[in-house]
Amino acid sequence: MNDRLLRALRLEPVDATPVWFMRQAGRYMAEYRAIREKYTLLEICDRPELAAEVTLQPVKAFGVDAAILFADILLPLVPMGLKLEFAKGEGPVFHNPIATTADVEALSLIDAKDALHNVMEALALVKAEIRGKTPLIGFAGAPFTLASYMIEGGSSRSFTKAKRFMYDNPKAWHALMDKLATVISGYLVAQADAGADVLQLFDSWVGALSPEDYKEYAQPYSKRILDAVKARGVPSIHFGTETATLLPLMAEAGGDMIGLDWRTDLVKGWESVGSGKGVQGNLDPVALFAPRPELERRVKSVLAKAANRSGHVFNLGHGILQETPVDNVRAVVEMVHEFSRR
Amino acid sequence: MNDRLLRALRLEPVDATPVWFMRQAGRYMAEYRAIREKYTLLEICDRPELAAEVTLQPVKAFGVDAAILFADILLPLVPMGLKLEFAKGEGPVFHNPIATTADVEALSLIDAKDALHNVMEALALVKAEIRGKTPLIGFAGAPFTLASYMIEGGSSRSFTKAKRFMYDNPKAWHALMDKLATVISGYLVAQADAGADVLQLFDSWVGALSPEDYKEYAQPYSKRILDAVKARGVPSIHFGTETATLLPLMAEAGGDMIGLDWRTDLVKGWESVGSGKGVQGNLDPVALFAPRPELERRVKSVLAKAANRSGHVFNLGHGILQETPVDNVRAVVEMVHEFSRR
Repeated sequence: MNDRLLRALRLEPVDATPVWFMRQAGRYMAEYRAIREKYTLLEICDRPELAAEVTLQPVKAFGVDAAILFADILLPLVPMGLKLEFAKGEGPVFHNPIATTADVEALSLIDAKDALHNVMEALALVKAEIRGKTPLIGFAGAPFTLASYMIEGGSSRSFTKAKRFMYDNPKAWHALMDKLATVISGYLVAQADAGADVLQLFDSWVGALSPEDYKEYAQPYSKRILDAVKARGVPSIHFGTETATLLPLMAEAGGDMIGLDWRTDLVKGWESVGSGKGVQGNLDPVALFAPRPELERRVKSVLAKAANRSGHVFNLGHGILQETPVDNVRAVVEMVHEFSRR
Repeated sequence: MNDRLLRALRLEPVDATPVWFMRQAGRYMAEYRAIREKYTLLEICDRPELAAEVTLQPVKAFGVDAAILFADILLPLVPMGLKLEFAKGEGPVFHNPIATTADVEALSLIDAKDALHNVMEALALVKAEIRGKTPLIGFAGAPFTLASYMIEGGSSRSFTKAKRFMYDNPKAWHALMDKLATVISGYLVAQADAGADVLQLFDSWVGALSPEDYKEYAQPYSKRILDAVKARGVPSIHFGTETATLLPLMAEAGGDMIGLDWRTDLVKGWESVGSGKGVQGNLDPVALFAPRPELERRVKSVLAKAANRSGHVFNLGHGILQETPVDNVRAVVEMVHEFSRR
């Protein structure tokens, strides 16, 4: 078993720094595009054998130190009652966004194990294939990030609708977050039961909140989920972007390791997180487009900031971008292993 | 003369905290929409009497403590050689974005006083109207933010093209930033000559950079501009968003006051900026949509964090959003003055 990731999560020494990439399976890979020609994104997520195949593509191609299940953070919202479509070039669209207390009340408190059994089957298929070799990461979206999509009806820049919902109808906001915390806790625990070795909570858009708003409107719900994961005995990674001012509060909410984006200097970010947890990150995803010597310089810079400390997982500061050159992804995996070899 | 803003910029005590809003003239005001029905955005910017009229609308309507010239940060790029259009619903589009060294070399080193004489005339018109009453703020975009628009060809989320240009062709990047620093220095000094009492440098998108990249690729050019403004003897405000990790470097680059967005706690942000400078901010623009008691709570919270310190200007953490309720804008001006009255 390649246990670098698991050792890093326990703050134990490793033979070389573990590396994987958020959204490591995706459009930048020809193998993935070949499958996407025949199936939609939701079809791939829905068919365990396809999801498992896609999950394994970057593991086979690059030798990354973890597989992460191919899925979308919005999947649990469909059985909860939302009509999701991935419109061409527009990203996700919900045709019945949440606007009222009644909308929140109408959401189903699903049992994720049943409602998302295809995800569990995909995890089991991947696990059977890589057992004893590579750890498998399961994941879910955090309540704030999910609620923002549910209320905005899709992606957003200013999160005006989500924040207005919060201010205008705080009771309904808290009821929504409460439901999401319950569902996502169950979803992550079910993923552990299905074979996930590590769980990552993606609070990708939480950086839109001030620290005070995070504490009041988001943190308690992320904490409930991360507590449930901890109680299940599975290590977890807690990730967001634009979180420089939220890191101490995110660490307080939970997670064995906190994901940092590239805006935060890794040394200072780790200070904010506190010494009891590891950190994951934090190469700028655009650095993967740089000429090789510049890319190498940047990889070395990230590694140097984590040198002599146990508990660092190399990753990007956010997901791999669609046009990323595959050769550079492979090169970064080799660089990280070579430069960090103890 | 209402000298609250100027006193705050000098870190002197004030009778009440000065307040103005970024993008305080704009679509959320009926008076502005009435003019926009007849003229395009660029036509309003181009006609001094219209620009002056629009500039004065929020001063008359709300009694804000400063007028800020109605203009767009992209205006200087037009005489430099870029073909700018504000496409309906899409924001700014450049039809000939910068892609090569030759494109950078082809840019004109304009003399802003002549090339943008309409802006200077608008400033003079506003100044004639408000002299002795309200201070007038001139402004420009900082080189990184302008370069990102020039290379991306418009707005962007990931700034992939701009950063790739930086990595792939650092010489051309620095040449571009050098030209922008020269032009923008001249543009701001010319605005001071035309009557601006204060100058704000908008580095709105600089938060896309890591601290190291900011230091190498952006800071020296912002510093040149802010040094030129300082040499001209006019106080300045240096603003960006998502800058929690950049604040010490932005303060080092210059400005008598640093603008904070709402992601940064005002007390901690001021610590990062250092005690020798004031801070401006930092209400979340979405708070202006909140019910009145919630809005009041949030205004008080910002003021409480700056209490007992000279050198705070109340503002939003970014520009006013388009659908903002006018009554709430007026109410915030009153609240700030009332709650901060010494």
